[in-house]
Amino acid sequence: MIIGVLGPAGSYSEKAAKKWSKKLKCLETPLFQYYEDITDTFSAIVDKTIDFGVVPVENSIEGSVGITLDQLFENEVTITGEIVVPIEHCLLSKGTLSDIKIILSHPQALAQCRNFLKTHFKNTELRTTGSTSHAAKLATEFEEMAAIASRSSAEMYGLNILISSIQDQNENYTRFLVITSKDGYSNSLLIPSEHLYKTSIIVYLDKNCPGALYEILEEFAKRRINLTKIESRPSKKALGDYLFYIDFEGNIQDEIIKDALNKLKTKVKMLKILGSYPEDNYNH
Amino acid sequence: MIIGVLGPAGSYSEKAAKKWSKKLKCLETPLFQYYEDITDTFSAIVDKTIDFGVVPVENSIEGSVGITLDQLFENEVTITGEIVVPIEHCLLSKGTLSDIKIILSHPQALAQCRNFLKTHFKNTELRTTGSTSHAAKLATEFEEMAAIASRSSAEMYGLNILISSIQDQNENYTRFLVITSKDGYSNSLLIPSEHLYKTSIIVYLDKNCPGALYEILEEFAKRRINLTKIESRPSKKALGDYLFYIDFEGNIQDEIIKDALNKLKTKVKMLKILGSYPEDNYNH
Repeated sequence: MIIGVLGPAGSYSEKAAKKWSKKLKCLETPLFQYYEDITDTFSAIVDKTIDFGVVPVENSIEGSVGITLDQLFENEVTITGEIVVPIEHCLLSKGTLSDIKIILSHPQALAQCRNFLKTHFKNTELRTTGSTSHAAKLATEFEEMAAIASRSSAEMYGLNILISSIQDQNENYTRFLVITSKDGYSNSLLIPSEHLYKTSIIVYLDKNCPGALYEILEEFAKRRINLTKIESRPSKKALGDYLFYIDFEGNIQDEIIKDALNKLKTKVKMLKILGSYPEDNYNH
Repeated sequence: MIIGVLGPAGSYSEKAAKKWSKKLKCLETPLFQYYEDITDTFSAIVDKTIDFGVVPVENSIEGSVGITLDQLFENEVTITGEIVVPIEHCLLSKGTLSDIKIILSHPQALAQCRNFLKTHFKNTELRTTGSTSHAAKLATEFEEMAAIASRSSAEMYGLNILISSIQDQNENYTRFLVITSKDGYSNSLLIPSEHLYKTSIIVYLDKNCPGALYEILEEFAKRRINLTKIESRPSKKALGDYLFYIDFEGNIQDEIIKDALNKLKTKVKMLKILGSYPEDNYNH
């Protein structure tokens, strides 16, 4: 079983993938394939070079990961799992605090530490990398470079943890999705079925119809289906034209969900069903 | 009249501010105050160092500007205008294409040119700056640096336009908001009143109530109030806990809007009214 994640080794995506693979019934030890960016992970799923891909989708401080939402719309993939990982960003370097001239990290991590950077490193140059672990790897080259990355990246790349827990809110979680190809692994082979399921869809409404979103939500509300997330994303056709990403409780196999989605289809320009998957009860 | 914008001179925010100030009845020539980041512009409004601030809020390719949404929630400011500006990103440098080792720009601009960068500059180092004009200014220092910035930044900083219109979609617009302090300038002094108005609010729902969002939208739908945008943003309290940013047609002075908001108040944990302002009919 090959799982594609954002690389190099030590990324939060890899951590999420390890957490997820431990929950599987399947005893095969996963092999990791590392990608430079999220779009490459999606391409590898579409090409069937890998069995699963693990990609970040939202963070409790900085919100949705736009590129993942866009890729879910653009590619034929299925969501088959979710994993929530606590995020503790650390400032890592070979040097000391007074050496630091450049701070490297993924744009999402830089945004999650925005106040910290503004307070303590207002005039320090910030450089973006494809992942936090890539930042850690680069920071091994010069003492004047520091990376924002995980505690485990410090160990892996032999860096000092100069300051730990530097994210702007102490509580910091990232939710990852497990994606597979449309005709990929069946859920039932992999995951105990007693979990509560969630389903993710994308809808494109008729823009000129006032109350269109309200009529969509009506189909969920009148069936007492609980929405867990609703997010708008540009359709990229015009400003003010959006796709809606909706997550709700329930499995596409359930009659009530089938019924709701059948009704929904008649009310929208486009409905894309991304998949049903067991909820990660990370708080329990 | 002092307008605060993202600096240095030549930023898209300044372009938006100039477009907006031309529409004013007021004949005073605006003075621009340049800030390094969006939070500084908000602080200057709260401190009353400036009369107005112009900040980007959403882009037709890359979506919402998270920091602006967060700042609208955290500060006591009023939205008093919107401006939509067409965005044409160019690759600017003192050198030639073969010299380029580093590309600088604002994270939003890098994201809007994601496919271009991946196709043509896969291994080139990307560095983030506080604004596109700041990137242009820095790119004047070395021939191996290029900036992603506007055509006017090329002129202003004496850079060559190596490639123009490099954003991933030809149609690229950014919507800016004009903010002022709570007891700042009155709309009627500044803007012709025949414009269609929009109103922006933030609501925080009772998370454990299924169908809570549906019940909110009901108040708009049954009054035929057209929503122009709905966006979720992390409350930063916990993963899966959101604030909703809602824009709709109508003025807070209209009876029907007052009525809807009064009803809304009884259904939510928090309602923050950000302001009513004339719609920018940029397509007409």
